[in-house]
Amino acid sequence: MERHNLLIMSDLVGSSEVRRLRKFANVYRSSELDEKTLADRLRQTDALLISLWPEFLTDEMLRSMKRLRFIQGILVGVDHIPFQTLGRKVVVCSNAGAYSLEVGEHAFGLLLSAAKRVVDTHNSVARGKTDFKEFRGTADDILVLRGKTLGVIGYGGIGAVVAGLGRSFGMKVIALSRSRRSASGSGRGVKIVRGRGALTSLLAGSDAVVLALPLTNLTEGMIGAKELSVAKGGAVLVNISRGDIVNQAALYEHLRRNPSFRYATDVWWYKEGRETLVTDYPFTSLPNFVGTPHISGPTAVASGRPVRMAVENTLRYLRGLRPKNVVKRSEYYRSIVL
Amino acid sequence: MERHNLLIMSDLVGSSEVRRLRKFANVYRSSELDEKTLADRLRQTDALLISLWPEFLTDEMLRSMKRLRFIQGILVGVDHIPFQTLGRKVVVCSNAGAYSLEVGEHAFGLLLSAAKRVVDTHNSVARGKTDFKEFRGTADDILVLRGKTLGVIGYGGIGAVVAGLGRSFGMKVIALSRSRRSASGSGRGVKIVRGRGALTSLLAGSDAVVLALPLTNLTEGMIGAKELSVAKGGAVLVNISRGDIVNQAALYEHLRRNPSFRYATDVWWYKEGRETLVTDYPFTSLPNFVGTPHISGPTAVASGRPVRMAVENTLRYLRGLRPKNVVKRSEYYRSIVL
Repeated sequence: MERHNLLIMSDLVGSSEVRRLRKFANVYRSSELDEKTLADRLRQTDALLISLWPEFLTDEMLRSMKRLRFIQGILVGVDHIPFQTLGRKVVVCSNAGAYSLEVGEHAFGLLLSAAKRVVDTHNSVARGKTDFKEFRGTADDILVLRGKTLGVIGYGGIGAVVAGLGRSFGMKVIALSRSRRSASGSGRGVKIVRGRGALTSLLAGSDAVVLALPLTNLTEGMIGAKELSVAKGGAVLVNISRGDIVNQAALYEHLRRNPSFRYATDVWWYKEGRETLVTDYPFTSLPNFVGTPHISGPTAVASGRPVRMAVENTLRYLRGLRPKNVVKRSEYYRSIVL
Repeated sequence: MERHNLLIMSDLVGSSEVRRLRKFANVYRSSELDEKTLADRLRQTDALLISLWPEFLTDEMLRSMKRLRFIQGILVGVDHIPFQTLGRKVVVCSNAGAYSLEVGEHAFGLLLSAAKRVVDTHNSVARGKTDFKEFRGTADDILVLRGKTLGVIGYGGIGAVVAGLGRSFGMKVIALSRSRRSASGSGRGVKIVRGRGALTSLLAGSDAVVLALPLTNLTEGMIGAKELSVAKGGAVLVNISRGDIVNQAALYEHLRRNPSFRYATDVWWYKEGRETLVTDYPFTSLPNFVGTPHISGPTAVASGRPVRMAVENTLRYLRGLRPKNVVKRSEYYRSIVL
């Protein structure tokens, strides 16, 4: 068997990881190659290890990579990869599970921040509202989690962490899943729902909802005006997956009209193929919007786990074993403009 | 036995509760009495049911209440009661346990808000910091709870809820308690510590610390410059008991000099005997300060539980049974200026 050519296009992979990979492949780093050498290497590359899809790797360059067969992502989501330009034989692997702990905790941080109205009351005090009497109505909009219902949309690694924390807070947990495997959740007090109508009934019955599913052609814009209209008036919606799961215009209108409904997010909408903190509507002027600048993922990266797991999976491919977390390419049609 | 005279000085007690109390006492409500009648009633009153100590009830009026023997609070803390003016025979009962669930959840909301830097990063985005690159260093200051140590100072009802949630997040939990009874905590994976030096070692070893103890003459100013200096540099200190447990000047200085250390509070310092959102130092201008305007308690009141429990305990007294939650009067010397 010919030796693999692996190109690493991420600064996150350290030298000890590179040494492990060198046992099974010729390893190159794009950051160490000049433009001409890179163009040559790309044509020889059969495996890619990436973080966010690099801006310099244009569709034209990608089309020149005739030998490419495998892409391993270090991020959990793969929606940034230009699937429509990839050769049919390329297998794409996500890094599912690598971020579950940190992102799940962050989801609960956002959920409690919004449920307990931490951000908006803090800012009111900071802006000089210093009479306790002015906060008298606040308690009505504070969500006590115990005994309430948590809806988890997407029951993968992150969804399972979120569901477990919800149970710890004494919540009833309903999880929307399309996988048969996740039926195991029931054993831990999580009710798994599936199929048509499940989304609507989950939204209608939940006091807090966490979006924990990948952005694909099946999930883009999944939460629109209709879905928001069935949600409880005082519910908290948390997004730690991708901004574009939620329709931006519909959400803004819903938040403006329903001051007791809250949206707390770590992820933002795409513009020209890139996530941006610049929104089409003035969300941060609304007291019922909480947004952190996509900081849950980097926290996980700092643990070293995502790189370690991505390298392990790449090693599986290089050694001729079946890699984990192969994504269904047909679900990722998104055209990313670089 | 002569029938008791109970005076209710709180708007929170509903008519059904009054009916229950009437079976065992003559019940009066201060809000329904004119000034002269009230002065007469006070002299006959042997039991008081109060929320926050009423401003109109001056020391002089209190001294006229020669028959007073029992005060039941609806709030969990009793530090607002003018103990120095109370007759020696007056038994004072707190409402310990009535707020544990809601206040414990709020404590975790504050803890996660600060740990995940929700408030300061949200505000940075709102103020126009909209380039993800500017947040690159943020992940270093995000505290992942799993595997870290939570110190709980005060292991009563609220402390136990906080400790339990800490265990759910996979934290090691150490609780500082002075009660022998709370040794039961050990069974739930909580390490109970006591005595001299325990405070210092708890602070030095904890990544997050929650203050959950009453304000007494033993606890006022308990967290000062020396205690803060032994805490971990990136620790989160949460206060849901009373502002004055922490020395205001020392805290401000510590937060200013240690931007990675965070303080998140629902309770504020006393000024002229009343809690106020107006502080001596510009805390809300610091990114490592999070403050909600004492909203955890009212959430619990909304559940009806605090009034119900306070009424139950008052009934115990009226029926000649031993009331629960009798406080040690010697610990409450605080002179409240009304």
